Amino acid sequence: MSTNKPTLHTCLSPALLNLYDVNNSIVVIIDILRATSTIASALYNGAKCVIPVDSVSRCIEVYGNSPFEYPKEFIENKTLVLTTTNGTRLLQMALDKSAEGIITGAFVNLSSVCDYLVEMNQNVILGCAAWKDRVNMEDTLFAGAVIARIKKQFHINCDSSNMAETLYNDGKKDLFEFMKKNNASHYHRLMGFGLEKDIRYCLTADEANVLPAYRDGKLLVS
Amino acid sequence: MSTNKPTLHTCLSPALLNLYDVNNSIVVIIDILRATSTIASALYNGAKCVIPVDSVSRCIEVYGNSPFEYPKEFIENKTLVLTTTNGTRLLQMALDKSAEGIITGAFVNLSSVCDYLVEMNQNVILGCAAWKDRVNMEDTLFAGAVIARIKKQFHINCDSSNMAETLYNDGKKDLFEFMKKNNASHYHRLMGFGLEKDIRYCLTADEANVLPAYRDGKLLVS
Repeated sequence: MSTNKPTLHTCLSPALLNLYDVNNSIVVIIDILRATSTIASALYNGAKCVIPVDSVSRCIEVYGNSPFEYPKEFIENKTLVLTTTNGTRLLQMALDKSAEGIITGAFVNLSSVCDYLVEMNQNVILGCAAWKDRVNMEDTLFAGAVIARIKKQFHINCDSSNMAETLYNDGKKDLFEFMKKNNASHYHRLMGFGLEKDIRYCLTADEANVLPAYRDGKLLVS
Repeated sequence: MSTNKPTLHTCLSPALLNLYDVNNSIVVIIDILRATSTIASALYNGAKCVIPVDSVSRCIEVYGNSPFEYPKEFIENKTLVLTTTNGTRLLQMALDKSAEGIITGAFVNLSSVCDYLVEMNQNVILGCAAWKDRVNMEDTLFAGAVIARIKKQFHINCDSSNMAETLYNDGKKDLFEFMKKNNASHYHRLMGFGLEKDIRYCLTADEANVLPAYRDGKLLVS
């Protein structure tokens, strides 16, 4: 390698995480629809912290997992316990592999994520939470958005990253239409639940521009 | 599912194969640079059969793995033992999971693969051999090429497939330039070895349009 820049890789599924040098990297957990969008939104609206859990327990009946369920009046100074199977699993894997740092990323906090990664100047793994290990479009698109913005600061020799950036550049003019046109599976699933508003919000940049960082079991504003 | 069409999935890395219902499917092994391109070329030029092996043994010194090493005068009626780590591993995995059928696919035999899949009317897994489990661009592009051609005959609820098709449609006017522009890792590796001619050939449709099918340890023209 003829460069001193840190590396950046995109891991398209938790099942591929073991291919990457996690313990030397900052891992960005990406679960656009909707865990990491909701985490940023809750913290942006003043939640004290978010505790991600993977079991579908009673809390799913009490709290929803739409970013719109956490307006400031409701969430301020509260702790949110969020059930998120895919995101929590990836987070736990990153912890087990002693990641240098763990943050969560979503379109709603895109700028915070990018600014932080550039500032830290360390190796980065963009970790897509995917869906039961199956690669998904929206997490890949977000990885592409980060790469499009910060690639000059990193050494990238990773086809997953190159593909993600290409897809993002293809779709960036209207990500909602891109998801629709290309039959993204979660687009259909959430539209089926009448959640168009959620999808549109989760694909909008910087609506909840904070940086959730993981520490001692909790996600807190960094 | 409101359709009786068979399903089609794209598996972007051997490490993800266990997510799919292999034993009810025809698996297409894809290793564009260069194993499955070479397999089709050798059979097209009259090789009796190709035996894929995964160990890098003496045969790599005797035989090369460029499709140009097997002109008709050399290969006709001979058996080719081809070392291909990534492709062989995926093939073995598909065998272990009792795939309904196993064929190999490459741009050089794109039409044969598509015609066969449509004719069989069974579930399909497009299996990218990748590179040490890391997703690569050229195998994904080939999956996209197949999907672009035959998607109407299949039920596709698979973001990997949707992403592959989008990338292929983006790049199809000039796949070589697309690989170059998007920094595909194997583009750089093979160009570094002076193998531009190999890359261009391996990205060209139907130059060796036969259908290699796996039977009893060998790939034979179906």
